[in-house]
Amino acid sequence: MSQKEITIYDIAEKLAISAATVSRALQNHPAVNAKTKKRIVDLANELGYQSNKFASNLRKQKTHTIGVIVPRLNSAFMSTVLSGIEKVANNAGYNLIISQSFETHDKEAQNAQTMFNNRVDALVISLAYDTKDYKHLNSFIKKKIPIIFFDRVADKIDATKVLIDNFKAGYQATEHLIQQGCKEILHITGNLSRNVYNDRFEGYKKALEDNGIKYDQKLLICNDLSEKAIEDCLKNDVLKRTKLPDGLFITSDPSAAYALTILKEAGVKVPQDMAIIGFNNDLISRVCEPAISTINYPGNQMGETIARILINHLNGESDINYMNTVILKTDLIVRNSSLKKK
Amino acid sequence: MSQKEITIYDIAEKLAISAATVSRALQNHPAVNAKTKKRIVDLANELGYQSNKFASNLRKQKTHTIGVIVPRLNSAFMSTVLSGIEKVANNAGYNLIISQSFETHDKEAQNAQTMFNNRVDALVISLAYDTKDYKHLNSFIKKKIPIIFFDRVADKIDATKVLIDNFKAGYQATEHLIQQGCKEILHITGNLSRNVYNDRFEGYKKALEDNGIKYDQKLLICNDLSEKAIEDCLKNDVLKRTKLPDGLFITSDPSAAYALTILKEAGVKVPQDMAIIGFNNDLISRVCEPAISTINYPGNQMGETIARILINHLNGESDINYMNTVILKTDLIVRNSSLKKK
Repeated sequence: MSQKEITIYDIAEKLAISAATVSRALQNHPAVNAKTKKRIVDLANELGYQSNKFASNLRKQKTHTIGVIVPRLNSAFMSTVLSGIEKVANNAGYNLIISQSFETHDKEAQNAQTMFNNRVDALVISLAYDTKDYKHLNSFIKKKIPIIFFDRVADKIDATKVLIDNFKAGYQATEHLIQQGCKEILHITGNLSRNVYNDRFEGYKKALEDNGIKYDQKLLICNDLSEKAIEDCLKNDVLKRTKLPDGLFITSDPSAAYALTILKEAGVKVPQDMAIIGFNNDLISRVCEPAISTINYPGNQMGETIARILINHLNGESDINYMNTVILKTDLIVRNSSLKKK
Repeated sequence: MSQKEITIYDIAEKLAISAATVSRALQNHPAVNAKTKKRIVDLANELGYQSNKFASNLRKQKTHTIGVIVPRLNSAFMSTVLSGIEKVANNAGYNLIISQSFETHDKEAQNAQTMFNNRVDALVISLAYDTKDYKHLNSFIKKKIPIIFFDRVADKIDATKVLIDNFKAGYQATEHLIQQGCKEILHITGNLSRNVYNDRFEGYKKALEDNGIKYDQKLLICNDLSEKAIEDCLKNDVLKRTKLPDGLFITSDPSAAYALTILKEAGVKVPQDMAIIGFNNDLISRVCEPAISTINYPGNQMGETIARILINHLNGESDINYMNTVILKTDLIVRNSSLKKK
């Protein structure tokens, strides 16, 4: 830490040329000839010269960093989105600072404050399970630092949102099960105060209604979709019911795969006794037996879209304030877990 | 961007108190009484005051950021490690800058340079598939910026490594298949110039040797373990062989799950015709039918360990230079995909 910093003046002195030439060469300026450039760059590397992006950022009031807050890094869907954001942002010269809220409002607020103090140029956020208000984002809004919400978005804030049509996806999944002959469709999902789960649930209810099936609240189970929660609700509730539901719409593929495993162990035949449909189209849905029907949710494209919108805004090419909502396309993917009628 | 920055002087003026008091209050100094502190903090929030961590970092020559370069973000194993690093780093007040090399040396070198210029306090790296030399890390070494390698490590650099005993794990996996009666064990794995794959391969060979089975190089297939590569080598090679191998040791669980699906489709009975063992203990290995035997690789603990070592070093509590290699424990997990003898 306390080592002497190598400057362009040190390089200039050693090569007996001007500091201005060194500076231009290190920025790959065309006015410096290739041979000189090489001598300068080689010496810079040898001496361990570090361009002072940090100080230059401070002057420009830009950090070229984008803050990203996600509920959990450890999720196939999230890692696909992050991969898409990182790819586009990195190519445009932006770094990602990533943190996780662990599904709590407090940690999310704390992470937002840290990112604000670190002067990220933009914030990308998918809300925690229990985030109730958005006060922790006020400082960004006041300072006109662009915010993009994705997947789990805030309806009450006037910021850009990138998401899918969760209502439609929920409707499609449920309608598919009904078309396969299911009449009692269990819906296992997350916290209904989050748009993604609420909208899918509304789609589920509407599909039932449109097909003359009365909504039964005993067929709705909300939990955090963890392995523990899935095991719990199936073993201690669903599998003990006198009559098993004949369909299951569960809003994540890992949960669907895990539920399938538990149901099979309990002797439930899928799809004959219970047809299953998941959500996301993760690899896990394809390797199960039977393979699990699902809704294709293009996480990678979502990530790339988010980064492109932000970078165009930050570069002044387009104004994010005119773009309120971007809805990405989803598809119903039918596999054997739900095909009662072949 | 061009908005006027709120300073402690603005807050001091509005409250008719000294800037020093404002500064102390915002740092939660005990000398300022609670009531005054609250007035100051409330006004700071209202005005959108942003603590200048950025400039203060510049003065202190510390950024409180840790750079992390991984081959791909989109991997269950990597996201588990990242989640562990982030959790510990975040609690200690450090931010993570994360980037992916997309398995190429060039992108890895470019990302390392960006992180160096952004003055990360430390670098955490798992090497790309084709990284051949480590010149791109010289600037860190010269500047005494600590580097921790994990999983895919560089043997030739004197830096801290956090990994598992890949030789032992490869030996155990192979030995288990031999104990189940396998005599021709196919080994599908990654680039052997990476330690993780080479060490597992050496373990595989040693287990064969110790059990009097001659190593046959036709039973070694190296590729990038992508879905495409797995499909390719199975459909266009393995499944066309006159005699099928009776065992398969494949060094990642998603690949093992995908291979299982393809083999089952082709009518191969698992484990009777071919016993399978994977690597990592991802959820995907548990939901397959049959469930896939594997090596438990504690990604989350690996991430937490890495972050703790770094933070202890950065806080001056322990010196990373005395810690060369940390080896985490793995376990053989036997499931039905390899149980020929029940």
